[in-house]
Amino acid sequence: MPSPDESVHPTATGLAKETVDRHQKDEDLVLWSGWFCPFNQRIWMALEERKIAYQYHEVNPYKKEKHFLNLNPLGLVPTLEIKSTNGQSKALYESDVLVEYLEDLYPESNEHPSIFPKDTYEKSWVRLNVQHITKKIIPAYFKLQQFQDPSDQDSAREELYKGLRTLTERVKGPYFAGEQFTAVDLSIAPFVRRFYNLVEFRGLDESKVGDQWLSYREKLMDRESLKNTSSENKYYTEILERYLKNEAQSQVAKATRGGQSLP
Amino acid sequence: MPSPDESVHPTATGLAKETVDRHQKDEDLVLWSGWFCPFNQRIWMALEERKIAYQYHEVNPYKKEKHFLNLNPLGLVPTLEIKSTNGQSKALYESDVLVEYLEDLYPESNEHPSIFPKDTYEKSWVRLNVQHITKKIIPAYFKLQQFQDPSDQDSAREELYKGLRTLTERVKGPYFAGEQFTAVDLSIAPFVRRFYNLVEFRGLDESKVGDQWLSYREKLMDRESLKNTSSENKYYTEILERYLKNEAQSQVAKATRGGQSLP
Ligand SMILES: N[C@@H](CCC(=O)N[C@@H](CS)C(=O)NCC(=O)O)C(=O)O
Ligand SMILES: N[C@@H](CCC(=O)N[C@@H](CS)C(=O)NCC(=O)O)C(=O)O
Repeated sequence: MPSPDESVHPTATGLAKETVDRHQKDEDLVLWSGWFCPFNQRIWMALEERKIAYQYHEVNPYKKEKHFLNLNPLGLVPTLEIKSTNGQSKALYESDVLVEYLEDLYPESNEHPSIFPKDTYEKSWVRLNVQHITKKIIPAYFKLQQFQDPSDQDSAREELYKGLRTLTERVKGPYFAGEQFTAVDLSIAPFVRRFYNLVEFRGLDESKVGDQWLSYREKLMDRESLKNTSSENKYYTEILERYLKNEAQSQVAKATRGGQSLP
Repeated sequence: MPSPDESVHPTATGLAKETVDRHQKDEDLVLWSGWFCPFNQRIWMALEERKIAYQYHEVNPYKKEKHFLNLNPLGLVPTLEIKSTNGQSKALYESDVLVEYLEDLYPESNEHPSIFPKDTYEKSWVRLNVQHITKKIIPAYFKLQQFQDPSDQDSAREELYKGLRTLTERVKGPYFAGEQFTAVDLSIAPFVRRFYNLVEFRGLDESKVGDQWLSYREKLMDRESLKNTSSENKYYTEILERYLKNEAQSQVAKATRGGQSLP
């Protein structure tokens, strides 16, 4: 039985579509991407922020096609294919591993600005807060979206506020680590971009997180790399609706439903 | 009400005790450590493997003392205190973030061998497999330990075998990445060190994972850094028994019980 998620709109739209079109020619790095996926948008933003050459390749991860599973046995986007001179390909996946990979492959330079602070301690502090986002904020986001029982939604909403407040206390401003746009900012931005659905259907009220959050989130939403990798709202909404009705069958949806950790 | 976990034996024993004794003098890096904790043992092993100067400081994380929470608001070991010349301290936590921190602080040198491969792709592959351990193997380990219902135990055991098999297929031998001992090896070794309890009380049969696993796990158990940071079995057993009876009240135990992601 095909998963309902398989029917996602086949391509990016809006500004994201223009970015896709600019990245069609052959490159050694190929981003196997789902235009709709917030984890995927992280690494897409990293490629854009760091001005790294890449080829964009749209894939529907719910179809689990063999050539895709050969690259990533978990069948998840983002997956990065790395072509080598001998015609062989290797692959890596997991958005946060990919961000580190790009950093090792293209260390900070004028051409390729880093998305980690130079200072060793600050760099680790960024990594630690990426983990805070992954472990505390994202699971709450998915629960709030998917849970049907109002009291379960209430506690997921509180969990989300709490995770966002902890992050906000640590924001130096304008971005997390100060003037530099870092891995923390691009790890949370794609999710914040999708909050509008929770505002409309789940009573999310970001002013409850506090004023400092509101100005931080505005800076995030203004970032070119986020805008240029974002599709039109109505196409996100189409997908998010399946989560709101708890009908999605993705690995994330099943994990959220079954109280498992996210893939 | 004090948590039952608070009553852990106060100090390391056996070879671990000797290592503790060798690391009492003041150093800029202070490991706030729980001798019993497998996550903690990861970074303790990294410090030993990489021959980095550190001061060992035993802490009972279940007591949540204020000076400890000031360093790590999550109240978890391992926590690394970093003293600076002005007398101020900073701290970092999360075992995998700490491993990366040490790598940035002491890049590969003759004195301080790295626990990551030099090759950029292989380094990311190591990181990806540390995530595999964290996301697939560790949760199954804790479920098998804690679940009381035999059919729940059966599926946790299968989940554990499956995670171990995937890892084993990727082991180049003798260690995960070949001759070099890497972050993958030290991320799994402390857990394998504690498998004896699951063999005795949960029908764990590692031969079901396969012969290649058996030889890999033997290499891990033979590693000096593991032995030198390991206490005597009976003290581990004392703690593990609370998990086996599902009486533990640690954050890990509560997360496992409640179907949440691990802290
Ligand atoms: N931990 C992964 C998560 C990626 C993920 O969950 N991707 C989703 C789309 S948003 C996917 O590919 N799902 C396919 C499926 O559920 O089968 C990362 O950070 O890259
Ligand atoms: N994700 C953390 C987990 C550390 C952890 O769970 N530590 C346990 C001991 S094994 C702890 O400090 N527990 C205190 C508590 O449960 O309150 C890491 O990898 O460092």
